[in-house]
Amino acid sequence: MSNITPAEHLAEVLSRFDDAPDARLGEIMKSAIRHMHEFVVEVGLTREEWFAGMEGLAAIGRMCDDKRQEFILLSDTLGVSMLVEMINHLAAEGTTEPTVFGPFHVDGAPRLAMGDSIIVDPMDDDEPLTVRGQVTSLGGVPIEGAELDVWQAASNGFYDVQDDAQTPLNMRGIFTTGADGRYEVSTVRPVSYPVPDDGPAGALLHATGRHNWRPAHVHFVVSAPGYKTVITHLFDRDSDFLDSDVVFGVRDSLIVDMNDGRCDYDFVLEPTV
Amino acid sequence: MSNITPAEHLAEVLSRFDDAPDARLGEIMKSAIRHMHEFVVEVGLTREEWFAGMEGLAAIGRMCDDKRQEFILLSDTLGVSMLVEMINHLAAEGTTEPTVFGPFHVDGAPRLAMGDSIIVDPMDDDEPLTVRGQVTSLGGVPIEGAELDVWQAASNGFYDVQDDAQTPLNMRGIFTTGADGRYEVSTVRPVSYPVPDDGPAGALLHATGRHNWRPAHVHFVVSAPGYKTVITHLFDRDSDFLDSDVVFGVRDSLIVDMNDGRCDYDFVLEPTV
Repeated sequence: MSNITPAEHLAEVLSRFDDAPDARLGEIMKSAIRHMHEFVVEVGLTREEWFAGMEGLAAIGRMCDDKRQEFILLSDTLGVSMLVEMINHLAAEGTTEPTVFGPFHVDGAPRLAMGDSIIVDPMDDDEPLTVRGQVTSLGGVPIEGAELDVWQAASNGFYDVQDDAQTPLNMRGIFTTGADGRYEVSTVRPVSYPVPDDGPAGALLHATGRHNWRPAHVHFVVSAPGYKTVITHLFDRDSDFLDSDVVFGVRDSLIVDMNDGRCDYDFVLEPTV
Repeated sequence: MSNITPAEHLAEVLSRFDDAPDARLGEIMKSAIRHMHEFVVEVGLTREEWFAGMEGLAAIGRMCDDKRQEFILLSDTLGVSMLVEMINHLAAEGTTEPTVFGPFHVDGAPRLAMGDSIIVDPMDDDEPLTVRGQVTSLGGVPIEGAELDVWQAASNGFYDVQDDAQTPLNMRGIFTTGADGRYEVSTVRPVSYPVPDDGPAGALLHATGRHNWRPAHVHFVVSAPGYKTVITHLFDRDSDFLDSDVVFGVRDSLIVDMNDGRCDYDFVLEPTV
C-alpha cells in the first residue's frame, strides 16, 4: 500500500504554505487547497474526469477577454458571486437587501434630473414604467443627496454594452435626491433575458439541465454620505424565472409590482457608524 | 437582515442540479459547488479577493495552448494531480508505488533492445547511468513481456518537447522483458529541474514563498498483460528537493541510489484479478 494517505498528503501540501510572506494569501490558498482535495476524495474523481476539468478550465479561459469574463459568468451561475455579496454586504434588519452587481455596470452614466428618462433609444416593445419612491435612513428619515445609479437591459433583452445597435449609455442614469429624499426614474418595464450560453459556462448549464435566464429587473446602486452603499435590483413580480434566476439574485423583498406603469419602492440605508 | 442565509443559499444552488441528466456530472458539480461556497464563507472572501481570483483564473487560461496547460501545472503544484493518482491507483501492499504522470510523456517512443541507450543527443554534463532490475508479480515471479516506457529530462534539465535543440524522442524508449523479467536501460543520471515559472502558476509559487523545483527522477510506465499498469518515477537519493518536490510526487519507496553509475530497482505489479 501507499506509504502516505490522502490526509497526510494534504497536510504536506498545506505545510508548504506555512511561510507565505502574505499571510492572507497563505490562508486563502490553504482553505482553497483543502476544499479541492476534499472534493477530489469525496467524489472519487477519476483521472479522466480530472483531465476533463483541466480542459474545461482552459476552455473557459479561452473565452475571457476585455469584453467577456467567462469565469465571472461561471461564478454567477454557481451562486458564488451572490454568496460573496451576501457575506460582504450583510443588510441590517429593515434595510434594503443587496443582490449581485452583475457584469453590465458602466461608469460615466449621465447625471439626470429627477423624473428624467434613461431611454436614449426607444424600441417598439417598450412598455413605459416610472420607478419612484424615497431613500431613507433606518428610522424613515429622508436622505438628501443620495445618489441612485440606475441601469437595465433594453426591451430587446440586451444591455447597451452587448448590443452595437444601441447608443452607448442607453438605459443608464444617475439621480440625486433632494431634501425630501424622493426619487423618480422614467424608463421601460424590464424584460427577462438569457445570460450568454455560447461558452463553457452556458454549456455547463445546459448539460446539467438548467436554463440560462434571469427574471426582469432594474439595477440600482444607492449611496449617500454617511451610509453603507447598497447594490441591488428591483424585480418585476410578473416576470418568469423569479424562482429560478440563473445567478440566484432574487430576494423576496426586492420583488415589486410593475404592472400598471408604476413601481413604488423605498430604499432604506444603514448608517456607516 | 437578509431573508436567506449562506446555508439556505447553498441549498438552493445545489437543488438546481437535482435534475441533471448526467447523474455523475450532477454529483461532481454539487460537491464542487458545496466546497466553493464553504471556502468563500470560511475565509470571508472579500469582493476584491473574489475579483482577483476571477482575474487570476482568466490569466491562467490565457497561458493555455496546445503546448502549455497552465491549469495542469497549477493542479500539480497544489498537490491535486498527485491526489488524483493516489485515489485512482491504489498500490497493493508490496507493489511498486505510483506517482504523477506529468505533462512530458510522448507516445511513439522507439522500441529498444534490452540494455540499449535512450540517449540520442549526448551532452557535456552527461553522467552515465544504467537502470536495471526485474519486473515481477507480487509473489516475486518474473513477468515475461512486461513493457517499460521510460522517459526523462536531458542533462540540461529539459525534456525534448521543451527544447528545440534536442532531437524529438531524445531520452525516451520502450523496453520489453524476456522470460527472466529483467530489464536494463542505458541512460544518464537525471538532474533536478524547475517547472515553468513564467506564468500565473509560477507567480503563485513565488508569492507564497515556494520554489519551483522537482528532484532528479526517471519516469516509468510499467505494464504487462494481466497486471495493473503502474505509472511512477525513480528518484535519485542524492538529489536536492526530495523533501520539497514542487508537485509532491516523491515517495520513500521510489528513492534509489544512483551514485555509482548504477541504479537497481525491481518493479512489482499487481494482477488485475
